Amino acid sequence: MTTQFHGIIGYTVTPFSHAGEQLDLPALGQCIERLIDSGVHVIAPLGSTGEGAYLSDSEWQQVAEYSLGSIAKRVPSIVSVSDLTTTGAIRRARFAQAHGADALMVLPTAYWKLSEREIVQHYRAIAASVDLPIMLYNNPATSGTDMPVELILRIVREIDNVTMVKESTGDIQRMHKLHVLGEGQVPFYNGCNPLALESFAAGAKGWCTAACNLIPELNLELYHAVLAGDLEQAKTLFYRQLPLLEFILKGGLPATVKAGLTLTGLDAGEPRRPVFALDQQNIEKLQVLLAQLR
Amino acid sequence: MTTQFHGIIGYTVTPFSHAGEQLDLPALGQCIERLIDSGVHVIAPLGSTGEGAYLSDSEWQQVAEYSLGSIAKRVPSIVSVSDLTTTGAIRRARFAQAHGADALMVLPTAYWKLSEREIVQHYRAIAASVDLPIMLYNNPATSGTDMPVELILRIVREIDNVTMVKESTGDIQRMHKLHVLGEGQVPFYNGCNPLALESFAAGAKGWCTAACNLIPELNLELYHAVLAGDLEQAKTLFYRQLPLLEFILKGGLPATVKAGLTLTGLDAGEPRRPVFALDQQNIEKLQVLLAQLR
Amino acid sequence: MTTQFHGIIGYTVTPFSHAGEQLDLPALGQCIERLIDSGVHVIAPLGSTGEGAYLSDSEWQQVAEYSLGSIAKRVPSIVSVSDLTTTGAIRRARFAQAHGADALMVLPTAYWKLSEREIVQHYRAIAASVDLPIMLYNNPATSGTDMPVELILRIVREIDNVTMVKESTGDIQRMHKLHVLGEGQVPFYNGCNPLALESFAAGAKGWCTAACNLIPELNLELYHAVLAGDLEQAKTLFYRQLPLLEFILKGGLPATVKAGLTLTGLDAGEPRRPVFALDQQNIEKLQVLLAQLR
Amino acid sequence: MTTQFHGIIGYTVTPFSHAGEQLDLPALGQCIERLIDSGVHVIAPLGSTGEGAYLSDSEWQQVAEYSLGSIAKRVPSIVSVSDLTTTGAIRRARFAQAHGADALMVLPTAYWKLSEREIVQHYRAIAASVDLPIMLYNNPATSGTDMPVELILRIVREIDNVTMVKESTGDIQRMHKLHVLGEGQVPFYNGCNPLALESFAAGAKGWCTAACNLIPELNLELYHAVLAGDLEQAKTLFYRQLPLLEFILKGGLPATVKAGLTLTGLDAGEPRRPVFALDQQNIEKLQVLLAQLR
Repeated sequence: MTTQFHGIIGYTVTPFSHAGEQLDLPALGQCIERLIDSGVHVIAPLGSTGEGAYLSDSEWQQVAEYSLGSIAKRVPSIVSVSDLTTTGAIRRARFAQAHGADALMVLPTAYWKLSEREIVQHYRAIAASVDLPIMLYNNPATSGTDMPVELILRIVREIDNVTMVKESTGDIQRMHKLHVLGEGQVPFYNGCNPLALESFAAGAKGWCTAACNLIPELNLELYHAVLAGDLEQAKTLFYRQLPLLEFILKGGLPATVKAGLTLTGLDAGEPRRPVFALDQQNIEKLQVLLAQLR
Repeated sequence: MTTQFHGIIGYTVTPFSHAGEQLDLPALGQCIERLIDSGVHVIAPLGSTGEGAYLSDSEWQQVAEYSLGSIAKRVPSIVSVSDLTTTGAIRRARFAQAHGADALMVLPTAYWKLSEREIVQHYRAIAASVDLPIMLYNNPATSGTDMPVELILRIVREIDNVTMVKESTGDIQRMHKLHVLGEGQVPFYNGCNPLALESFAAGAKGWCTAACNLIPELNLELYHAVLAGDLEQAKTLFYRQLPLLEFILKGGLPATVKAGLTLTGLDAGEPRRPVFALDQQNIEKLQVLLAQLR
Repeated sequence: MTTQFHGIIGYTVTPFSHAGEQLDLPALGQCIERLIDSGVHVIAPLGSTGEGAYLSDSEWQQVAEYSLGSIAKRVPSIVSVSDLTTTGAIRRARFAQAHGADALMVLPTAYWKLSEREIVQHYRAIAASVDLPIMLYNNPATSGTDMPVELILRIVREIDNVTMVKESTGDIQRMHKLHVLGEGQVPFYNGCNPLALESFAAGAKGWCTAACNLIPELNLELYHAVLAGDLEQAKTLFYRQLPLLEFILKGGLPATVKAGLTLTGLDAGEPRRPVFALDQQNIEKLQVLLAQLR
Repeated sequence: MTTQFHGIIGYTVTPFSHAGEQLDLPALGQCIERLIDSGVHVIAPLGSTGEGAYLSDSEWQQVAEYSLGSIAKRVPSIVSVSDLTTTGAIRRARFAQAHGADALMVLPTAYWKLSEREIVQHYRAIAASVDLPIMLYNNPATSGTDMPVELILRIVREIDNVTMVKESTGDIQRMHKLHVLGEGQVPFYNGCNPLALESFAAGAKGWCTAACNLIPELNLELYHAVLAGDLEQAKTLFYRQLPLLEFILKGGLPATVKAGLTLTGLDAGEPRRPVFALDQQNIEKLQVLLAQLR
């Protein structure tokens, strides 16, 4: 299986109506329209930014179904189906496939630290339950599991429909290793916003980001400068958007992106507790940062 | 509120009937009888060892109700009610209180890293929802959240019914700090098995452990040697059980404790996937370790 | 070779006459008299506290000769002979032996990270150049080299006159491992002041400390309580001296111990630059801490 | 003072005649001729690769004088004058200036961890002792001191002749911060070979490397591709040389670069003990790597 994506892969938020309690699906629909209008290449519902980890099973299914219905194949979709249990992840994977997802993203979240054998088997079981291509996602900061490059490549080689790798450790040398040990054949994607420039320099096929909810033009222009091989322009574009990229990473993606959407006219509500909404001081900082990029 | 525990606080496992799929409540009942017969001072259902993080809400409630019914106030109980969302943790806290728990344990599990403000508010909301004493639990390795001693003491001081602290970082100097900054007034408990001896030397009131499912006599004897102030005897007892303590920590508590229970005649099934049961080689190692302690 | 020490092993400072520039040997002599009068079991010149790393070869030799002459075999001496080059360490080792040292301490300081093979060979070459027993010293924070317990025990087993181990990582579990893998036969010593109590509980034979320049009675009383197996008394004595132990560790041993000596009537001068003397605010803090322990 | 360098800054080794014992100055001269012939932009004697930390004062002076005499201003020179004591570093700085160095490099090596105040004062004292521009060098892995970007910029701003920054933590985000907080005005240089590509993408003015002793053409071509803004060509050139860059980093620069020089006809001897020469197996690996780049 050789499906792969390229370019800007945009994460959706999951809007709530009050203090993170009730789903606000119409707001989710608006968020998706904005992303499609902006020209992102792929849409990724229910990722970290989408607070997928904080939803009940029933909510998760509502958001998945609604998102896929709204995207309606206008761009490809990749749905994050991570769950602490293998059974739960399989249930989500099948649900996403049944409702039209083009690909799945799987982060091996862990309470008890997983062995390599357990990680491989987790991927194998999920992959066997669907026909879709899967993007393996490495992000020890949120998942508690750090997969070394050798393990990642073993999974890609052993499991047919694991075809893409998203790397979010923030260590650019992992991407070198993916490129070299993968002999340039394994498409990898950057999930660490402040590495947007260097990951493209190192050969990343795409950039998975929630920033495109707020500054899609700058994200896309950076990608196009890279495609054109124009290093100077890419650098200028990168440093222009870096303060915002760092702000949303530091403030937490759900809180900062939701605040940014609200500032730009789309009320996305607050994150679910225990995660707080952005406080007033940071909302004002974000407003200044956004204004500087207009 | 001054409720506090002392001595050996024993964790239950959650037995499953097949590959971690179905709850096996009768086996859970046997596990609890063993712990009570062994003389542990407190029983702690649904903790890390109890795979609380891997249960559905409905399963969690069945296990909580069944455990509390089985313990039947013969010894005090402390139920872990952690959940990724504040709302979920409150729901569990109220359920445990309604079914007779004597205390609650709360670990601030996180997907998105929590700020100090968010952690305090999470504890405040859970504590306000019940009348029970709460043991704050710090274990960054499983929860992804590391609470410095200053934050822990702030929570204990600001929230009336947070009265006990379980420390599992493995850094004995955290306990020094709890003792010194807490002016000897904040009872703390050790949750890191290989620090059993030194944490008592540093002033811990108790030892939260799953090892008492397998070697309760040795755990209790160590505690009694400490109570008697007999350092030499405590050291001898500690080094005698250390190989087993390290084995169960390294192999993962649910997998190793369940294997040990099965070896000693109580079939507790396997952990839930993606966590694997102990493999044959390690089962044999465990058998040897247990035989050496008979 | 089975030479080993026990009890309190006291480090000397190296007094300077002005801003760390000129050696003040008479003050060094007074420092040594104080240590001997206080009853410490062993004296250790030219260690970390003695700023051995900051001395020229000629200064180092003057201090070694003067110290050994002053100690005059009234108590055993152990001289630190560490140097970045193997040749330099051998030169110091031979000098110390020629001037009457009873044992040597060797820390494998590194600029370029050393492989295990290089570390073993470094110890082998130094050990072969003398007849004295050697204490291997592990302290990655100052040396840049962290020796795992397995490597340490390999060196002890392969090299006859490496007979003692000083552990200063601050991880009490290293001492468990030294005890278990060394089958209780390898004497180990604690070099991390805030672990004074727990390292004795774990079986350390002695405590290498500069604190005995300031509070030798408390250091010795803790050791005697441990020898008597009186855990409660040991704990009380430990927590009594802990604030001072943490203060001198945090403030840097040469600066804080020299300031403390000056406060107690022995002008030891300042550390050599770039290390600063204690500032006025911290001198006052130290004065309060010392007054509380009188 | 605005002196700054750009391009490839090449480190010299310090050849020894036997097992790291005697200086081999004629071999050093050949090494320098090669570097000049290859077209590197600047030559840097006595750095990490040059084993400056392992030389006696007298040896250090011989190497400094011989190197500067050989370079003879044909390209600019930057001499590393680091020493554990401030007095020693000043002595070396003055010596280098007196013998014609164009600039100095200063790494704050530490035995006792330095406070920010101590680091600033160390730089201030060295800078005040000479008229030359100074490159501040941050490399916690060898020096034991990690200077955060804010501290680095404070030093650059407060001390006139500290005009350049060499960053070797391997964290590309430090360079973003140097660029952003330094408002694009503080020239920074990459000292981490595997970041050669990305550091240029992030705006580094030059690359400090010992690799140019072995593959100067590839190093220079990468720099020229970057200057031309040709990202695709830069990437191709980078990945071509990456295996060698990683090999020399992993094997230790003095050992691997000396082995590589010997393989290419310039006998540079072995590193000084405790550092070992490359073993036969790795010499063969290096030979293969070099052959692939011919």
